[in-house]
Amino acid sequence: MKKRVTIQGVAGCYHDAAARGYFSGEDIDTIECDSFPALMDALSLDASLLGIMAIENTIAGALLQNHELLRMGHALIIGEYKMRISHSLAALPGQDIDELTEVNSHPMALRQCEQFLLRYPAMKRIEKFDTAGAAREIAENKLTGHAAVCGEYAARLYGLNVLASGIETNKRNFTRFLILADPLVAADLKPGEKDIDKSSIVFTLPHSKGALSKVLTILSFYDINLSKIQSMPIIGREWEYRFYADLTFDSYVRYCQAIEAVRPLTNELRVLGEYVECKNEI
Amino acid sequence: MKKRVTIQGVAGCYHDAAARGYFSGEDIDTIECDSFPALMDALSLDASLLGIMAIENTIAGALLQNHELLRMGHALIIGEYKMRISHSLAALPGQDIDELTEVNSHPMALRQCEQFLLRYPAMKRIEKFDTAGAAREIAENKLTGHAAVCGEYAARLYGLNVLASGIETNKRNFTRFLILADPLVAADLKPGEKDIDKSSIVFTLPHSKGALSKVLTILSFYDINLSKIQSMPIIGREWEYRFYADLTFDSYVRYCQAIEAVRPLTNELRVLGEYVECKNEI
Repeated sequence: MKKRVTIQGVAGCYHDAAARGYFSGEDIDTIECDSFPALMDALSLDASLLGIMAIENTIAGALLQNHELLRMGHALIIGEYKMRISHSLAALPGQDIDELTEVNSHPMALRQCEQFLLRYPAMKRIEKFDTAGAAREIAENKLTGHAAVCGEYAARLYGLNVLASGIETNKRNFTRFLILADPLVAADLKPGEKDIDKSSIVFTLPHSKGALSKVLTILSFYDINLSKIQSMPIIGREWEYRFYADLTFDSYVRYCQAIEAVRPLTNELRVLGEYVECKNEI
Repeated sequence: MKKRVTIQGVAGCYHDAAARGYFSGEDIDTIECDSFPALMDALSLDASLLGIMAIENTIAGALLQNHELLRMGHALIIGEYKMRISHSLAALPGQDIDELTEVNSHPMALRQCEQFLLRYPAMKRIEKFDTAGAAREIAENKLTGHAAVCGEYAARLYGLNVLASGIETNKRNFTRFLILADPLVAADLKPGEKDIDKSSIVFTLPHSKGALSKVLTILSFYDINLSKIQSMPIIGREWEYRFYADLTFDSYVRYCQAIEAVRPLTNELRVLGEYVECKNEI
């Protein structure tokens, strides 16, 4: 059966491109959602759906709201995908860059391309809900004189012509996406124990001196590496802190032992998913 | 001399309110900046200026871009302030809530008040650049029928009438602000060593197993508590990780010794500021 993956954004958006990158070689259907909470709701209503959700970006940082959605939801992480976010300037075929009077995109994408856009003062910047949506609007309404700042995949999908690519000021714009599934489906899709080399966990600790150093020291004794750690104050429970951590390891058995070794030192510990690390060069 | 504090946003915005909260009892001037990078530029051009910058929010999470601005700039942290972000519905005096046809605010603030606004379907939501700016526009142009979603301070500043307050769905919306100064000015304004009980540091570590646990274990031996930790991959230098940490302590001397004890284990370690912890109930 064809996999169905919920994405945040309209067809052609960066989530869509990332889903197709992760499942490359497979023909998948992507299903549009207009927010991350809606995406989690869709997952919980239909166990056969998969999901893809951005979790951190090298410019914007960690998407803390999405960490919380993961913690509060029941979906599990079954994989990760890292993708460079590169913007293009796209317009209807036949349009010349000097004929353009308006550029449409998400405000964040417009800001990320500011240095490029400064060279074209004739183009008025118009903010839109999303990058791929801006491209779709131009294509559907045949808007001559308009350009979109969007991904190459969106431009191609909507039949627009890429007039310039890689127009973002900071080329080090990477997003890490998580692939999500219902626990029952996750059990089927999960890689074999020999292949699993990464895990995402969330735990709380008493706000006592050295609580975190004990946990990390035990993890290091078990040869578990920390590829990410992030603390988050728990409002209304000021004596406790919550931590999100990503662990990488060579031995799945050692990792399982390490989790049991630190569990008694934590107040709550939940494994959000065990998967294969994305080795994309970033 | 009256202190001059650069804020991000227009007069009356949450940064403005936080600056006045931190310097309560003093008459200060606030200077508008329209972005965080512009704020840092203003600080580096005029050493007599102070600055205030949001660094984390309990809903949106850590503002990673601002961590990076701090690291790359030369200003030091001289204090912190924690403030609850509570939105009000404000309109021209004499207006009744049922007469309103339009509500203006920053898209984030509109979303945060969605449940309240659903009760007033007659009000069309119009997105504006910022909350206090929406209030100012209504006041300056005497826009009857319009309301702004903004802070109470903005409503008061622009002579608007608060029709409803605390209208945000999630009341646990707190922002932590840092007070910044040029290093020369910081040396004058810095609290005495006896009062300093918090510090913000940034360091990089080799990407070897257990590197972070060694650093945290040493800090705990010196009775230094970790009130925040956040990792950040260093793009292009994949064998290293950067960490932002906030430390709290009882003894400034012990803290200084701890910094020297961990320094040789780190690749780069910079103290971003030493200050008095904000004990606001959050």
